Amino acid sequence: MKNLRFLVLHGPNLNLLGTREPGHYGHVTLADINQSLIELGDTLGIEISTFQSNHEGELVDRIHQAASDNIDGIIINPAAYTHTSIALRDALLAISIPFIEVHLSNIHRREEFRHHSMLADAATGIVAGFGATSYLLALRGLQDHLRQI
Amino acid sequence: MKNLRFLVLHGPNLNLLGTREPGHYGHVTLADINQSLIELGDTLGIEISTFQSNHEGELVDRIHQAASDNIDGIIINPAAYTHTSIALRDALLAISIPFIEVHLSNIHRREEFRHHSMLADAATGIVAGFGATSYLLALRGLQDHLRQI
Amino acid sequence: MKNLRFLVLHGPNLNLLGTREPGHYGHVTLADINQSLIELGDTLGIEISTFQSNHEGELVDRIHQAASDNIDGIIINPAAYTHTSIALRDALLAISIPFIEVHLSNIHRREEFRHHSMLADAATGIVAGFGATSYLLALRGLQDHLRQI
Amino acid sequence: MKNLRFLVLHGPNLNLLGTREPGHYGHVTLADINQSLIELGDTLGIEISTFQSNHEGELVDRIHQAASDNIDGIIINPAAYTHTSIALRDALLAISIPFIEVHLSNIHRREEFRHHSMLADAATGIVAGFGATSYLLALRGLQDHLRQI
Amino acid sequence: MKNLRFLVLHGPNLNLLGTREPGHYGHVTLADINQSLIELGDTLGIEISTFQSNHEGELVDRIHQAASDNIDGIIINPAAYTHTSIALRDALLAISIPFIEVHLSNIHRREEFRHHSMLADAATGIVAGFGATSYLLALRGLQDHLRQI
Amino acid sequence: MKNLRFLVLHGPNLNLLGTREPGHYGHVTLADINQSLIELGDTLGIEISTFQSNHEGELVDRIHQAASDNIDGIIINPAAYTHTSIALRDALLAISIPFIEVHLSNIHRREEFRHHSMLADAATGIVAGFGATSYLLALRGLQDHLRQI
Amino acid sequence: MKNLRFLVLHGPNLNLLGTREPGHYGHVTLADINQSLIELGDTLGIEISTFQSNHEGELVDRIHQAASDNIDGIIINPAAYTHTSIALRDALLAISIPFIEVHLSNIHRREEFRHHSMLADAATGIVAGFGATSYLLALRGLQDHLRQI
Amino acid sequence: MKNLRFLVLHGPNLNLLGTREPGHYGHVTLADINQSLIELGDTLGIEISTFQSNHEGELVDRIHQAASDNIDGIIINPAAYTHTSIALRDALLAISIPFIEVHLSNIHRREEFRHHSMLADAATGIVAGFGATSYLLALRGLQDHLRQI
Amino acid sequence: MKNLRFLVLHGPNLNLLGTREPGHYGHVTLADINQSLIELGDTLGIEISTFQSNHEGELVDRIHQAASDNIDGIIINPAAYTHTSIALRDALLAISIPFIEVHLSNIHRREEFRHHSMLADAATGIVAGFGATSYLLALRGLQDHLRQI
Amino acid sequence: MKNLRFLVLHGPNLNLLGTREPGHYGHVTLADINQSLIELGDTLGIEISTFQSNHEGELVDRIHQAASDNIDGIIINPAAYTHTSIALRDALLAISIPFIEVHLSNIHRREEFRHHSMLADAATGIVAGFGATSYLLALRGLQDHLRQI
Amino acid sequence: MKNLRFLVLHGPNLNLLGTREPGHYGHVTLADINQSLIELGDTLGIEISTFQSNHEGELVDRIHQAASDNIDGIIINPAAYTHTSIALRDALLAISIPFIEVHLSNIHRREEFRHHSMLADAATGIVAGFGATSYLLALRGLQDHLRQI
Amino acid sequence: MKNLRFLVLHGPNLNLLGTREPGHYGHVTLADINQSLIELGDTLGIEISTFQSNHEGELVDRIHQAASDNIDGIIINPAAYTHTSIALRDALLAISIPFIEVHLSNIHRREEFRHHSMLADAATGIVAGFGATSYLLALRGLQDHLRQI
Repeated sequence: MKNLRFLVLHGPNLNLLGTREPGHYGHVTLADINQSLIELGDTLGIEISTFQSNHEGELVDRIHQAASDNIDGIIINPAAYTHTSIALRDALLAISIPFIEVHLSNIHRREEFRHHSMLADAATGIVAGFGATSYLLALRGLQDHLRQI
Repeated sequence: MKNLRFLVLHGPNLNLLGTREPGHYGHVTLADINQSLIELGDTLGIEISTFQSNHEGELVDRIHQAASDNIDGIIINPAAYTHTSIALRDALLAISIPFIEVHLSNIHRREEFRHHSMLADAATGIVAGFGATSYLLALRGLQDHLRQI
Repeated sequence: MKNLRFLVLHGPNLNLLGTREPGHYGHVTLADINQSLIELGDTLGIEISTFQSNHEGELVDRIHQAASDNIDGIIINPAAYTHTSIALRDALLAISIPFIEVHLSNIHRREEFRHHSMLADAATGIVAGFGATSYLLALRGLQDHLRQI
Repeated sequence: MKNLRFLVLHGPNLNLLGTREPGHYGHVTLADINQSLIELGDTLGIEISTFQSNHEGELVDRIHQAASDNIDGIIINPAAYTHTSIALRDALLAISIPFIEVHLSNIHRREEFRHHSMLADAATGIVAGFGATSYLLALRGLQDHLRQI
Repeated sequence: MKNLRFLVLHGPNLNLLGTREPGHYGHVTLADINQSLIELGDTLGIEISTFQSNHEGELVDRIHQAASDNIDGIIINPAAYTHTSIALRDALLAISIPFIEVHLSNIHRREEFRHHSMLADAATGIVAGFGATSYLLALRGLQDHLRQI
Repeated sequence: MKNLRFLVLHGPNLNLLGTREPGHYGHVTLADINQSLIELGDTLGIEISTFQSNHEGELVDRIHQAASDNIDGIIINPAAYTHTSIALRDALLAISIPFIEVHLSNIHRREEFRHHSMLADAATGIVAGFGATSYLLALRGLQDHLRQI
Repeated sequence: MKNLRFLVLHGPNLNLLGTREPGHYGHVTLADINQSLIELGDTLGIEISTFQSNHEGELVDRIHQAASDNIDGIIINPAAYTHTSIALRDALLAISIPFIEVHLSNIHRREEFRHHSMLADAATGIVAGFGATSYLLALRGLQDHLRQI
Repeated sequence: MKNLRFLVLHGPNLNLLGTREPGHYGHVTLADINQSLIELGDTLGIEISTFQSNHEGELVDRIHQAASDNIDGIIINPAAYTHTSIALRDALLAISIPFIEVHLSNIHRREEFRHHSMLADAATGIVAGFGATSYLLALRGLQDHLRQI
Repeated sequence: MKNLRFLVLHGPNLNLLGTREPGHYGHVTLADINQSLIELGDTLGIEISTFQSNHEGELVDRIHQAASDNIDGIIINPAAYTHTSIALRDALLAISIPFIEVHLSNIHRREEFRHHSMLADAATGIVAGFGATSYLLALRGLQDHLRQI
Repeated sequence: MKNLRFLVLHGPNLNLLGTREPGHYGHVTLADINQSLIELGDTLGIEISTFQSNHEGELVDRIHQAASDNIDGIIINPAAYTHTSIALRDALLAISIPFIEVHLSNIHRREEFRHHSMLADAATGIVAGFGATSYLLALRGLQDHLRQI
Repeated sequence: MKNLRFLVLHGPNLNLLGTREPGHYGHVTLADINQSLIELGDTLGIEISTFQSNHEGELVDRIHQAASDNIDGIIINPAAYTHTSIALRDALLAISIPFIEVHLSNIHRREEFRHHSMLADAATGIVAGFGATSYLLALRGLQDHLRQI
Repeated sequence: MKNLRFLVLHGPNLNLLGTREPGHYGHVTLADINQSLIELGDTLGIEISTFQSNHEGELVDRIHQAASDNIDGIIINPAAYTHTSIALRDALLAISIPFIEVHLSNIHRREEFRHHSMLADAATGIVAGFGATSYLLALRGLQDHLRQI
């Protein structure tokens, strides 16, 4: 049985993780998170590729590419684009690959405008509030979901 | 090092799980979910107790009791009370035990009135949309959270 | 052909009927209403059981029991819970037994918050404003509906 | 004791009943409904006259005429005008004849703009969701109401 | 100097004036009002024509006709159509004849949905709450307005 | 038969009338308006006193004084305070003297926040859009109203 | 292959086209538009019938008649009824003939209340803002749509 | 002159008073509050009975019982049910016993959803923000109110 | 131990108390209320000064003066300014003297616009609905609050 | 007479056309649409250039370039950016070149957030719901519009 | 070239500056601000007069006086009246003297009700958040604006 | 003492300044503005770097770079992104460098959707409406702010 292939997408400003605003996001860097995902992926038999961009258009392009790359599932932390990007929503719906929406912090504890997600109703599942662990739970949950289809 | 003790709370109508509305909730019964939680708890060194009620007041009472039982964390699927119960919110805030809000289905795909949770901003984390696996991810996430405090 | 079996549910404060607030509800008691329903049921060949509670949880429990009791249809006057109870809605949807929503008074003549029902879009039919006669019309209407399925 | 006289008013597009949109309204024609009402009226000692129009103004005119015709009660299915016609509301209030608002389908299951009625708070009672039977229940309910005044 | 010619339009249900709902509208009939207008018109040198209809379309037609009739000004009590008729608004705007909006009662004392007028911002002036006298004040005001153009 | 006594109140900035913002209010000064009112009052047998203030509190004080002065009716152009002053509303309701709300311009043609009046539902009648003539119509209308009580 | 038959419906006040309000609608008359439609219909092999009314009820009646006339498609400029008429919506949905919603002007440039259409989500397509050309584009678009079904 | 009899009702989570969330509610226990009320009652000649429950239904039942117990007045701190319980409102309205709504903290300083009370407009009076003293002021105020009826 | 000094502020129209609108405010005059406050103050060892104005600016000025007068607490019935005055709110916040908001009537039973207070979340406590007794309860409650700081 | 030059802009995700989500967009590819536009352009004497991007900024840049390229008109399908991009709106307004807003599907049949366009009121015309034909109708309509200026 | 003359207006509670609420406004007094303005005015060749009042009416009166005083520009910090005073807006619009709206603090960081200004859309420019420096920037900006007219 | 270093960011479409839409923005080009800023910077001892982009992602990238460049303060005119970009907000909050929000025109005079800023409550100060001078005032204000920290 061939390995699953997951794409992990990080939205705008997440490149600063671990260096800034620790009150919201903690001290772990994005490289740390990617490394943990790859390690857990190894354990679970899942190939992980990762991508971060501050550009909405580049994230859309990367999602399109996932379809040609035969990606089985996507884990996405859309960050600021969570609340405004219909383009990301359309891209994810267009390629029909299951995806999990992830947030480091509990978005319901933050500003009112962060309480609504443009992606949530199109997602397979949602994990929020566990810091970097949110990604690892999403990885397990997405694998579990794909096993059951 | 002593084991952690978690309380798992199931809200109204979840006693019917696996027998009714499989379109939303799948075929797994509540007993199955509880069994999986206990098994994963055994693996991770966590004692699990579970409780289901259709009565808001009984759920409040059980949350109060958790404080005297030295429960370390709560996993709660508040079901219909997610969207209306300030009493559950107050109970959880009063006892100051970290809790995870869990949903079997993706509540953002359902009726508009299910998109808002009275508990979410008080929760440590949120997991939704993975079916029965949501509870298991919550268990891992809550353990991880308590290790870091 | 076997008799139909209907469950009639009365929500909170309806136990006071006929003794209080005659301006809204008239002088007929709940016992009177139940008696009329049983009598009309006898005429139409329908077994009637009735239940009143001020507790949302007990109403949910009783709805669950209806599924094991092979109830064919439910007539429910949810009273105050009409406007707030997602738990009752979920219970009624879960057991998939057709139900009629009944109100003694015309809820559109009362406070703004009584104009919206959490159950109405899940109901087979709605009857309101005829006093105790609302229940009897619901009984006829529900029988008619079940004949046509 | 003289017979009661009821006027049954059918609003716009109801002339198409039974020929179109059976998903919402079933296969019964307007003539069938009028016939059933007349038959039940005969049994209950009530004279029934019926009127359908796609013109708001004609419905208003017909309501005015009811006052000179000594109509005792009105059963009205305002159809599309339910949600927009203040003129019908004013006409019904002006003549002070009790009326029942009837809908074939459960309007709460349809588009958002059909959830509000301009007439409901002025009506004696409301019956919705029983198909053609809604009219018959309204007939019984209106008779019952007039007996009690 | 030639006489001014005014058209007075009465909307739906105003034909019932003086016979029904005296609580809102008093005991004066529509014929009385028209008579007073004609008499005051005689005094002021204004020819008055009047028209009442329960049909929105007939009122629109009559407004169109006013343009060919060389009417100098319109006094309109749109009654129920005040709050809903964009067609009346468009007709009045299209013919570019100054008009006064008149109400017998103070519409701000009645139901919430009567507080907004679709015509008000297109009107030259508004008079409300003086009973039948509202029309007479409108007549004087409109004459005064036309003198100043 | 003794003369009626009317108080005419002018709200903030109306002292500038005729000197500023002619686009909205025309070239007539406040003194002109008061003069016209006194002249028409003479003709109709009504004593007119007038008062202008930019101070909400002074207008409230003057309204209170009207009660001891045996004023029969008030004509008030509340200007900017129309939309915000509950104190003026309370003062007018407290003294129970009928009042007419007057506006020079058609407030529905101006900014959104000018469309709502805090006084309108407490007024006997409303006249707007006729420029200085609005006051004269109000004077006639108020006299007419008091004759009928 | 038999010709297609299209019905073109013009709503209230459109009979005034070309004579009034050229700022919004230009100088072309309704007769001009009908003539252009018939000419383009001739070219494309489509029989065109046209109908204008200021009466909502007459438009509903004419839509009903379209079903018996074997009309293949409808082009409708509902004018003022665009924003308020559920009766037109119901009529168009009931007869299940594809229709195109047409507007001469860009309704999004006009008053706020003109931005919402009661028909738009039931239409096959929408064309707005091209003046009389809007109808011609709708004619081509509707033909194209019917070719593809 | 016989003593007055007051019932003091405490809503959900108030059993935790003095042990939890002192930031909002202080260190006084519910037993302390009840004791102070009884002592002040003794001084003022009022018999006090008290009841706490986390169950909405039990509070409704207890309110019903108050009618048979000849309770003269009710002091209720509905806690979380303040904002959601129509059932409590209906119960209090049904028994027609005057009641005072009490809050320990100033609810306007807390979350937005705590600013609206379902009971407030049915209450005789409201006291909030004085900690345990709120109850004592309510006791004095209710006594004073009953003396004046 | 030195006496406490309290300032009692009465907002617009309260000078009319006891002479007007008894339906809302009863027959007690403002002088009566001030007298009762002074007498209760004597008993409790509190010096009372009182001030009424219909002018928002004078109330702001008086609040500023309270700071130089070493006032220990303020009892304010802001009347109409409750719902609109940010200036009063800012004045009270600026001087940092604890204040109690008082209302004679239950503002939740009156017009919708009286349900929101601009001051409430800045107040120490709120007392409403007890008529003149509201002030006396506020006096006791404010004393109690200051003892505990 | 020189040829017109049109720019056709395709927004995010439209590069996937014909390969994904045929339920919304059909099987035609973007290359097919561009080819049809060029062919119809040839027939009508219009030079067509086309551009697609998933990047909002690139679309803005391309609109700016249109001004230097002497483009006579723009046809834009803004896709997801329709509903959120003020930057596109500003770019189109800044260059003052007439543009047509095009949608393949009827956006009023899709999610609520797709019903509002940030560009519509700045567009010359709007065509929606005809699939790929929408572009061709826009091309004809835009040519027609430019002929008339 | 004659000197410019500017009027600087300070709204309610600003007389307390520097003595109270330093968290929002800093330690600079109003006299300090006025002194800095006069000094910068001297440098730039601008005569400065200043005025503070807690009375909305006095501020309106002072604005009126500015017109007779040949004031060239106004700098106004309306403080609490920013959000509620239509009278100030009307006064400023009536005299047609350019004005700058100034705030010491960033009003978008404070309570929701402080985010909207009744004056902002009538102002020439807005400066907020720089403490006392806001006034000085406004002075420079207003001078610059007047030079360019 | 070392010079301060400021970054000036210009959002989408500002590259067109001085060439297009002079009604809103005047005739000054972006190069002119940058030149003025550098000159004033020279005078005040501040090094200025400037950057314009139509791409949200590039602006985010440039803000991130500011942190490594040891920029002391940012002046940003976010143009269209003012109202929609949470990504810019997050970037500015993440790097914790004080910033001033600048607008050439008074955004409160333009479309409703331009009245809200996603950045304003995170900004140190706001300057709007002074044309190119807005930037210069911001420069002075930011320098002043940094001196006081």
